[in-house]
Amino acid sequence: MLVVGELINSSRKSIKAAIDAEDAGAIKKIAKDQTENGADYIDVNAGTYVGKEDRYMKWLISTVQEAVDTPCCIDSPDPKVVEAALNLHKGTPMINSISLEKERWDALLPVVAGSDFKVIALCMSDSGMPETKDDRLAIAGDLVNSLVKNNVAVENIYVDPLVQPISTNDSYGMEFMNAVEAIMAEFPGVHTICGLSNISYGLPERELLNQTFMVMAICKGLDSAIINPLDKRMMANVYAAETLAGRDEYCGNYLAAFREEKLAL
Amino acid sequence: MLVVGELINSSRKSIKAAIDAEDAGAIKKIAKDQTENGADYIDVNAGTYVGKEDRYMKWLISTVQEAVDTPCCIDSPDPKVVEAALNLHKGTPMINSISLEKERWDALLPVVAGSDFKVIALCMSDSGMPETKDDRLAIAGDLVNSLVKNNVAVENIYVDPLVQPISTNDSYGMEFMNAVEAIMAEFPGVHTICGLSNISYGLPERELLNQTFMVMAICKGLDSAIINPLDKRMMANVYAAETLAGRDEYCGNYLAAFREEKLAL
Repeated sequence: MLVVGELINSSRKSIKAAIDAEDAGAIKKIAKDQTENGADYIDVNAGTYVGKEDRYMKWLISTVQEAVDTPCCIDSPDPKVVEAALNLHKGTPMINSISLEKERWDALLPVVAGSDFKVIALCMSDSGMPETKDDRLAIAGDLVNSLVKNNVAVENIYVDPLVQPISTNDSYGMEFMNAVEAIMAEFPGVHTICGLSNISYGLPERELLNQTFMVMAICKGLDSAIINPLDKRMMANVYAAETLAGRDEYCGNYLAAFREEKLAL
Repeated sequence: MLVVGELINSSRKSIKAAIDAEDAGAIKKIAKDQTENGADYIDVNAGTYVGKEDRYMKWLISTVQEAVDTPCCIDSPDPKVVEAALNLHKGTPMINSISLEKERWDALLPVVAGSDFKVIALCMSDSGMPETKDDRLAIAGDLVNSLVKNNVAVENIYVDPLVQPISTNDSYGMEFMNAVEAIMAEFPGVHTICGLSNISYGLPERELLNQTFMVMAICKGLDSAIINPLDKRMMANVYAAETLAGRDEYCGNYLAAFREEKLAL
């Protein structure tokens, strides 16, 4: 499981406070904590600073990279912000995210074409949000084929089938999960990824729903996620699900996690 | 989700103590607690009393039925014990379980043929335990077809694909789960059911594995389970998984469980 640590996002109060105070120590601590708890990439998002996003993105990227070797997941729809981040990022980042929306596609394609970046490809188009498995599969097909034509290696593509709230439509959970399964079957080598919080929008006990949804998605083949690696229960669920899904030889990672006291709830 | 409460089993210390002391109050309390927490059937097993199983089975059945209207799941491989239980059971019980092992099949078929009992059909044959999805599907096919030929209604058949320990073979989790999916697709109307504890045999933090496995199995279509309804975390996982799997119109059961304080962990 590839884990993108989601915490360094300016929409979170504590991160906004750290940015406003230029408190590099606080940002570094969160980068280190996420790395130590299993993050393979550190998502960095300064999207709430309209007009100043590039400035804060750059500060966050440098600050994170002073603290950890874990590469960043540069999280912005604005190609100028992404370029600014790329200019100072060391190592190979992940880009979050391109989509089939024409404006976003045209803006970000030149940035990722021919690169060796990991690219999150969000199943969204100008016709709106996908509802069914087939909607998602069609958009995913266009995204994967177009990215490959533009010299993005298939194994660097992380398709996000787009989670929608189960409170809106009973079928949204399974449509998403069946899309994960279909995308993994249809495009060998491609990865699938998602954030979770949308699934539980409008319902109580959201963490329970998010964790349960993650386990189900892993069962259907999801191999990457944008989550909080400091959420011990979420990570314990991920370890257990990976083992049960047959992706953990001799239960080695599960047993290591147990020895590191990461499983006790 | 059909829930069979697993607690009244003489292999559990507290139940053995209650049986030995003929403490009907203790048995009644466990029957009531399971019913109040979602059990649709109360499993009753006196298998550890070799030579006296029928006597204790009868006492347990009457005791349970004095306490609750929930029907019993009569859990014995011995047709004499099952017959003894049937003679005094009120309502329509579940039988746990027939299998393709010749001795067991021949003994229990006359009991269930033409009946309206719910019948657990365990994927086990004289060639040993199934390993792969296809092994399970083949045994399930024989069981379902033979039971239907003997006038057991397809909707009364609960196929148990047989959980095997993930510590023995990395693939045992997915082989089981893919069997659930295949059985539900191949035999419309049939149910799938399982006990869980085998999956985590030999590993630490067994409850975490059992709960995670249950969520994954629900995602693959499992619609019944033999579990402990008093395990709050397990039941919360079941409520969440059912909702996310699209089996809970307008999230009604999930919201009701929340109001009854069954979801907070």
